[in-house]
Amino acid sequence: MKNEKRIVLTGDRPTGPLHLGHYVGSLQSRITLQDTADQYVMIADLQALTDYAKESDFVRKNVFQVALDYLAVGIDPQKTVIFIQSLIPPLTELTLYYLNLVTWNRLKHNPTVKQEIVHKGFGEGVPAGFMVYPICQAADITAFKATCVPVGEDQLPMIEQTNEIVRAFNRTYKKDVLVEAEAFLSRAARLPGIDGSPKMSKTLNNAIYLSDTSDQVKKKVQKMYSDPRHLRVEDPGRVEGNPLFYYLDAFGKETSKIEQLKEHYRRGGLGDGVVKKHLLEVLIDFLEPIQKRRALFEKDPEGVMDILRSGSAKALEKASSTLSEVRSAMGLTY
Amino acid sequence: MKNEKRIVLTGDRPTGPLHLGHYVGSLQSRITLQDTADQYVMIADLQALTDYAKESDFVRKNVFQVALDYLAVGIDPQKTVIFIQSLIPPLTELTLYYLNLVTWNRLKHNPTVKQEIVHKGFGEGVPAGFMVYPICQAADITAFKATCVPVGEDQLPMIEQTNEIVRAFNRTYKKDVLVEAEAFLSRAARLPGIDGSPKMSKTLNNAIYLSDTSDQVKKKVQKMYSDPRHLRVEDPGRVEGNPLFYYLDAFGKETSKIEQLKEHYRRGGLGDGVVKKHLLEVLIDFLEPIQKRRALFEKDPEGVMDILRSGSAKALEKASSTLSEVRSAMGLTY
Repeated sequence: MKNEKRIVLTGDRPTGPLHLGHYVGSLQSRITLQDTADQYVMIADLQALTDYAKESDFVRKNVFQVALDYLAVGIDPQKTVIFIQSLIPPLTELTLYYLNLVTWNRLKHNPTVKQEIVHKGFGEGVPAGFMVYPICQAADITAFKATCVPVGEDQLPMIEQTNEIVRAFNRTYKKDVLVEAEAFLSRAARLPGIDGSPKMSKTLNNAIYLSDTSDQVKKKVQKMYSDPRHLRVEDPGRVEGNPLFYYLDAFGKETSKIEQLKEHYRRGGLGDGVVKKHLLEVLIDFLEPIQKRRALFEKDPEGVMDILRSGSAKALEKASSTLSEVRSAMGLTY
Repeated sequence: MKNEKRIVLTGDRPTGPLHLGHYVGSLQSRITLQDTADQYVMIADLQALTDYAKESDFVRKNVFQVALDYLAVGIDPQKTVIFIQSLIPPLTELTLYYLNLVTWNRLKHNPTVKQEIVHKGFGEGVPAGFMVYPICQAADITAFKATCVPVGEDQLPMIEQTNEIVRAFNRTYKKDVLVEAEAFLSRAARLPGIDGSPKMSKTLNNAIYLSDTSDQVKKKVQKMYSDPRHLRVEDPGRVEGNPLFYYLDAFGKETSKIEQLKEHYRRGGLGDGVVKKHLLEVLIDFLEPIQKRRALFEKDPEGVMDILRSGSAKALEKASSTLSEVRSAMGLTY
């Protein structure tokens, strides 16, 4: 383990508001990482356009919404560089240089991309930009010389592709310009959707958003899945795999109270209604300060945009410096 | 026919010195076009890198050589914007936006690219950048809002691809930002190689270069193919398809003298040696002023680089203005 400060690159596609699943899976660790690492958080509008090219207005609106979510949960622009991907033109230039170091066949066989093509139902109409996006990601990661990229298991092939490019570039141009990145696998268990499916997502319509009102949260908690075999209050219930307790574990602060509830639930005699009532309190407790901050930032859209512009200026400086090393290694200095 | 000034985009990949075939096929018409059109001539180093990624030094050196060739033949930087492709980052940004408007399938089926893959012998190792280069070309053409692109017959699918993107972009973003281009097919017959094969090219090692010394030209003319059935001086010879007369037609000034030679050759009694002697005079006459200018520029490499830098600054201004219209149509204004 080297003593150098880690450089973290992470971010989100601005295709919808962020939800509790994002909080558990990534936002939470960013709030921690910003104190110990150089952290870049990218609002990946270019990447969103690879499959939302025709809804660029939608992407644009979500850039602002995602920024609000970041600021609301406590990603601090004094500690973290928050930036908009499309304001960093060196990323597109790096992408084109890297495309020459990767074969067409390699792109075709990227396992993550293959899965997503099925998942997104592109059929024969896969946009070329979508096939190319692992190379754009390599540009994003290497532009900041990120050493640490938080990803899910399914994104590991992307890091592998990036590191292949890093090695090919340094070998081809005989200079160690680019830096290999390590995947940082989140240890947090994935938060299930309110319908009990293993992933919370906009597409599955099973998410509680960071921007949901207390009323919306209440309705969602009321219809949440629990143990399907826990039919009568007096029946013993299952805690493992029960979304209610996943959420309590993730957001509750009073551990002993939660342990009591679990024990009572297992034993029987504790109705879902009581657990949900407690969960609602926990979630509202958790969301209230976030929503207060969100409301403040929402009132000052120009202030938010200024934060994004200033973060983007910092990111541009870093990416431009890498680009100029890249061009110089390639001899593209005129 | 509109009365507006045509905007021409053309250029060369810097992968070797230019030869007489380039002169006849494109340089000549650029010298004419620069008086009547807004002409942009691009030294396409990015495109060269799609298949010469590992020889970037070679590409870099040829950027300078091609510039010398341009200036030597009389492409006038006061009338023509001569620029280096890699100094225009908006081209890479446009490429990435356009990639989202084209399907992966469409890229795969580009006839020109398919032919070139065979021709270049890539096998399974086609670089991804090579597959993507028709979209880079669309970026080049549209960045300057070129209305006229001089191409060979084999490049027509590239213009078609560009115009598909123009229509898709304007339709998707509901604004007529991009302009369709017309192919400008050269009427000049293609100059055969000195070995009689239909195309002069570096790869075929059958070219007379603009930068060849008189001695080199002499040797090449001496071994030039003529009419293979014209064995004895007194035999009648064929003028049609005879490289010697192609070259005389292309570079000779004294039309009546050439007609006399042709007539004599057809009749019999005129040896190849005499025709070659005359051709050598014609070529040296043609090349001498070009080589004098070349020598002058060669002595002042910084002056040449300044010309390229200043042309690139003009090209950058134009491309940036198009890019900002593109981004604004897409709503990417933050």
